[in-house]
Amino acid sequence: MTKQSIGIGLLGLGIIAGQVAKVLLEKADLLAEQVGCPVILRKIKVLPVDLEKEPARRLPPELLTTDEDQFFADPAIDIVVEAIGGENPALAYLQRAISGGKHLVTSNKEVIAKHGAALKTLAQQHGVGLRYEGSVGGGIPLIAPFKYDLVANDIKGIFAIINGTTNYILTRMGREGIDFPSALKSAQELGYAEANPENDIEGIDASYKLAILSSLAFQTDVRPEDIYREGISRISRRDFQYAQELGYAIKLLAIAKQIDDAIEVRVHPALIPEDSFLAKVDGVYNAILVEGDLVGKVLFFGEGAGALATSSAVIADVISSARDIVLGISDRATVKLDSGKKIIPMAEIETQYYLRINVADQPGVLARISKVFGDHLISISSVIQKKVDEETQTAEVVIMTHPAREKAMQQTLQKLGQLDVVKEISNFIRVETD
Amino acid sequence: MTKQSIGIGLLGLGIIAGQVAKVLLEKADLLAEQVGCPVILRKIKVLPVDLEKEPARRLPPELLTTDEDQFFADPAIDIVVEAIGGENPALAYLQRAISGGKHLVTSNKEVIAKHGAALKTLAQQHGVGLRYEGSVGGGIPLIAPFKYDLVANDIKGIFAIINGTTNYILTRMGREGIDFPSALKSAQELGYAEANPENDIEGIDASYKLAILSSLAFQTDVRPEDIYREGISRISRRDFQYAQELGYAIKLLAIAKQIDDAIEVRVHPALIPEDSFLAKVDGVYNAILVEGDLVGKVLFFGEGAGALATSSAVIADVISSARDIVLGISDRATVKLDSGKKIIPMAEIETQYYLRINVADQPGVLARISKVFGDHLISISSVIQKKVDEETQTAEVVIMTHPAREKAMQQTLQKLGQLDVVKEISNFIRVETD
Repeated sequence: MTKQSIGIGLLGLGIIAGQVAKVLLEKADLLAEQVGCPVILRKIKVLPVDLEKEPARRLPPELLTTDEDQFFADPAIDIVVEAIGGENPALAYLQRAISGGKHLVTSNKEVIAKHGAALKTLAQQHGVGLRYEGSVGGGIPLIAPFKYDLVANDIKGIFAIINGTTNYILTRMGREGIDFPSALKSAQELGYAEANPENDIEGIDASYKLAILSSLAFQTDVRPEDIYREGISRISRRDFQYAQELGYAIKLLAIAKQIDDAIEVRVHPALIPEDSFLAKVDGVYNAILVEGDLVGKVLFFGEGAGALATSSAVIADVISSARDIVLGISDRATVKLDSGKKIIPMAEIETQYYLRINVADQPGVLARISKVFGDHLISISSVIQKKVDEETQTAEVVIMTHPAREKAMQQTLQKLGQLDVVKEISNFIRVETD
Repeated sequence: MTKQSIGIGLLGLGIIAGQVAKVLLEKADLLAEQVGCPVILRKIKVLPVDLEKEPARRLPPELLTTDEDQFFADPAIDIVVEAIGGENPALAYLQRAISGGKHLVTSNKEVIAKHGAALKTLAQQHGVGLRYEGSVGGGIPLIAPFKYDLVANDIKGIFAIINGTTNYILTRMGREGIDFPSALKSAQELGYAEANPENDIEGIDASYKLAILSSLAFQTDVRPEDIYREGISRISRRDFQYAQELGYAIKLLAIAKQIDDAIEVRVHPALIPEDSFLAKVDGVYNAILVEGDLVGKVLFFGEGAGALATSSAVIADVISSARDIVLGISDRATVKLDSGKKIIPMAEIETQYYLRINVADQPGVLARISKVFGDHLISISSVIQKKVDEETQTAEVVIMTHPAREKAMQQTLQKLGQLDVVKEISNFIRVETD
């Protein structure tokens, strides 16, 4: 079967879809050369409201349709590019496209994180490819490295800054000593954070991306709800001051680790040594550190979002899908999710901890606090006591621990809260030194 | 055609080949799962001298052969993995394997840099794959990103630290204020530099790697001899002192840039801003910054050499080749080298410059020096004058320029050398701020 051309159908006409359409039209020669035949944008399925917007006006009107039945029935479409975002109706569209024998390209992290395993099975049944490089890290190659380039490795761990919004906020807080609400407001004004910032600042977006990466890395169906998750809103500038004093930066990390035959997956703020590579990743950039048994540590860094960067990944996926169609094959690498690796409950993980506690300024307090740690076999690595508030007669104590089990730490926190000398456990942040 | 198994023939049994053999044997299950059928190491072609060495003794004797005719005629071998290194006899072996219809995997940067274009043509004629991910950057994915992941981009530039030995030496010099001979000696003692270090310290190794990457990035047959090349042996600790004072690090950079429809390719030491990502890449690590029109700047970082890291890339290539054989196809992405992009002569490039000059300590010297720059329309951005040597009545002047054309700079250097007040042009290093 020799294809004369490859037809593309685009779902959506938001910022990313608009950019994808632009590249498909403007770089038609490059695509044809890479694929070996013309790659032609056949149809764009839009909402009636999209027709009034700027991207639609720049495009030939015959490309646009609001009729989804017509779109999915179009025999000239070989590859469906989904760029709507969100779970619905994207999921139903993806299922419909696959069932219709179309190859699929998407940058939809939510759908892939929640329904990736089912969609992969469906795609395999229908002999079509399902590609989603743009779903994590914008244009930074991440899906392909796990599927192809690092496939000889047993992956030991992933340590990633994969949400630009929170990294921007934390960078501003760390550099300028401003508090969280001001940094968030500034991020919103600059368009880095949305009006409703929950998805970013609560780590939901990062957990989708970690679910996608860790599923690939550990051949396990890791779902967003499997991932322990904490956001950044309770980080204060005081935490930054102490962290800097102790030689640490604070980042929202997405962590996946293999321990024996099980894995831990978590998204939370963490203190990391200020001379580590991830500590130097500032602003809206993303960086993903992967450790494999053969390759050692490799780091991927770049713009983690944005229409232009994401279109780099989407178009690469379109080219790969088109090459497959020309060769008469579907995606070559079959992703298996049957490794049977268990997910370690959060209570069982082991890491180090930073605590900031507000205590009564009286003799013997530190001894009583230290005793609680000792009772739970947690060993303290450093203590800072300062900032006596004359008015309330309280002091602030900052404690860093050696590695300890989360369960013991949670019990310690509970007991500390019951001490009459402890006024408040102001914050509690994990410390990652890997 | 359903393959029952894929057979591997390994050329060589040095450190990398020994590691590749080890992974092929120890990770046989992983390979079989990835490929869909067993991947079996059939034969290792060794030299008689190899038989006495450690790797050979750990392997089943029936795997080893010193008979190359037998090796190349073996019908059970589907993929030949070349891990001899060097130009000869590797080139002849690769040609023989391709002509015999074997798919090829190599980590040989010299052969690919010098003969890549011809080998690719030969491989296409015989319908076999030619993969060489391990030839640049150890296990860091670099070849695949250019062939697949970044293929939608017009590549604007590559800025890379791709020689671990020189980066180790420069890191030691920068940190400890030691001079080049001491740092080299230390690198040799630690096994990071060879007894004859020329290949590394003169930038030859880096130029091979840049030839490979820039050929892919710009679809042009860039050969090592096309690349302007300077080594690091003339960098002194004085240069590091001044660079640090001015806010710069010194690195051996491999640079490829697209300017309009032409490219510049060069390997030389460079001052780079100390807060740039590449400035923070220390020791034997490699980092490759790629800039594309869509993706923006992406950075790949990791161990750039070593048997373990390189085996990660070689085994990934073996798996990709084996998948192709199972599917009955050869490498999907055809690398074209016919873009017709011209290579810009070194005299025509534009960059900034750092000069360290030894001058007579007398009035009017700076005016006379500055005039020479002005005569060649080169504008000076900063000047440091210090270190008067009482005995010789000389002073040291350090000059940084704004962007200027190399040709004008070379003429300036020549004229400066003719001034009676200039005792010596002690050093001249390019400054890269991109």
